[in-house]
Amino acid sequence: MNVVGAEGNQLRDNLRRVQEEVDSVFDAFMPVPADTRARLVEAMRYAAIGGGKRVRPLLVVSTSELFGVDRNAALRAGTAVEAIHVYSLIHDDLPCMDDDDLRHGKPTVHKVYDEATAVLAGDALHALAFEILADPGTCSDPFVRSELITTLGTASGMNGMAGGQMMDMVADEEGVEYDLHTITRLQQLKTGALLAASVEMGAILGRVAPEGRAHLRAYARDIGLAFQIADDLLDVEGDQEKAGKALRKDDEQGKQTFVTLMGVDKAREQARAFVDQAIAHLASHGKEADTLRALARFIVERDR
Amino acid sequence: MNVVGAEGNQLRDNLRRVQEEVDSVFDAFMPVPADTRARLVEAMRYAAIGGGKRVRPLLVVSTSELFGVDRNAALRAGTAVEAIHVYSLIHDDLPCMDDDDLRHGKPTVHKVYDEATAVLAGDALHALAFEILADPGTCSDPFVRSELITTLGTASGMNGMAGGQMMDMVADEEGVEYDLHTITRLQQLKTGALLAASVEMGAILGRVAPEGRAHLRAYARDIGLAFQIADDLLDVEGDQEKAGKALRKDDEQGKQTFVTLMGVDKAREQARAFVDQAIAHLASHGKEADTLRALARFIVERDR
Repeated sequence: MNVVGAEGNQLRDNLRRVQEEVDSVFDAFMPVPADTRARLVEAMRYAAIGGGKRVRPLLVVSTSELFGVDRNAALRAGTAVEAIHVYSLIHDDLPCMDDDDLRHGKPTVHKVYDEATAVLAGDALHALAFEILADPGTCSDPFVRSELITTLGTASGMNGMAGGQMMDMVADEEGVEYDLHTITRLQQLKTGALLAASVEMGAILGRVAPEGRAHLRAYARDIGLAFQIADDLLDVEGDQEKAGKALRKDDEQGKQTFVTLMGVDKAREQARAFVDQAIAHLASHGKEADTLRALARFIVERDR
Repeated sequence: MNVVGAEGNQLRDNLRRVQEEVDSVFDAFMPVPADTRARLVEAMRYAAIGGGKRVRPLLVVSTSELFGVDRNAALRAGTAVEAIHVYSLIHDDLPCMDDDDLRHGKPTVHKVYDEATAVLAGDALHALAFEILADPGTCSDPFVRSELITTLGTASGMNGMAGGQMMDMVADEEGVEYDLHTITRLQQLKTGALLAASVEMGAILGRVAPEGRAHLRAYARDIGLAFQIADDLLDVEGDQEKAGKALRKDDEQGKQTFVTLMGVDKAREQARAFVDQAIAHLASHGKEADTLRALARFIVERDR
């Protein structure tokens, strides 16, 4: 992480705090049972606890802080988003998908357990996300809970993450060549939808009416695109050990990305432009939005 | 289906009507997009539309009829349960799980498309279930929506269907021998939880307080066990063509089931006893519970 000075230190502290808090929510929701379901829950815990940057939970928490939301509610909502993110990584890593052996610097779930356990652990984390959101302990207002679920469900299904993943697969398998417009759309679904949902859920917890969320949606869209370009750059230029996952995969697969379409320099410039634009959307907020600003900068500067 | 006479005809009509209605809810929620996500949505539609007995949706609809619930609300809730059921079949049929080529008399999703598409189609149907339940068009009361989601989420995750599935896998792979008590527990999670959730969701839509649902829970538990014994009997004695899926698998795999533990005759007797017991739990209801009674009988008499 290269966000520098006081801002960098502050963000590092924020991420570390959220990492610990998310781990403890996961821990509370996934006690290992005293029967043969233990294998399932151990696989879920292996994937969910103690790994990942927790960018999505920090987005939920930092957005909800703008509106004075109870931290426990925001953390639970953030953990629900992270449960969706983790399940998607488990399934993406399967041999029939990306066939990856390494994630967050450790062997992937199907390597440690087996493929069937990985499928099931993903499925059970998927269900857990919605269980957490529907729990009155997350937020006492059922209307808010229902809105959170609609937002997360839409962002993760056929009109969100799963849809983007399919667009990506079709390109890989059928050699369809997408233009920049379609790559942008693909990435907005595959990665952007869940990042945007995180921001949106913070605003929902803050009882911000849909029309009052436009600037936050714009912020989320811009960091989502910056995030994906940074990921593509990382694939080209990153240090595999720091990244904790296989890199140079796009090139090997002849895959079209922002970087192959724009070149490294132009892509980096574009990512920074998105970050500036994202930060500009927060102009109506004061110091209380500093974490969201730092997070936008972190997104392009990160090394994993 | 061997439920005879007027009751049989009535149930057949009810199932047929619900089959058409569920297909039309699925159709409305899954328009095929004009981009490369089409492959995903086509796979979802292939698995979800036009197949299956729709026992779970009929349970939701018939239970909610006891309490005068709007049919549209019950159908949407029933379709959400069916979306979970269908996603679980897609994932169970994968080569790394049960490796089945045939489902509802047609090739399984990973055979028609590929494994990656099957994983994703299951995931997207999983998300769709919760999107449908959280939609105000399903029920205007957010408290009811939230209770529906909690019920379905719990029934499908690590403390429900996925948990039971894992217990089953551990027995297959590690040769653990379960006693009748543990097999009962396993089946209550793997199959029973979703059937019970269907009845429970009908009662939730009917605004029945939790303490007023005890007899319906007891009904659901008994039909769940009868359903599983009937499934085990079907595996031993059924006609593969009518069943539309591979049979004789339990025996080939040396798997422990109600039938291997009790023998065919005792198992059939036990299934009928569960059905009688299930029907007895409905004594406080009049003719309006006749579909639930017929459904209980159908569950042990069905040939697929």
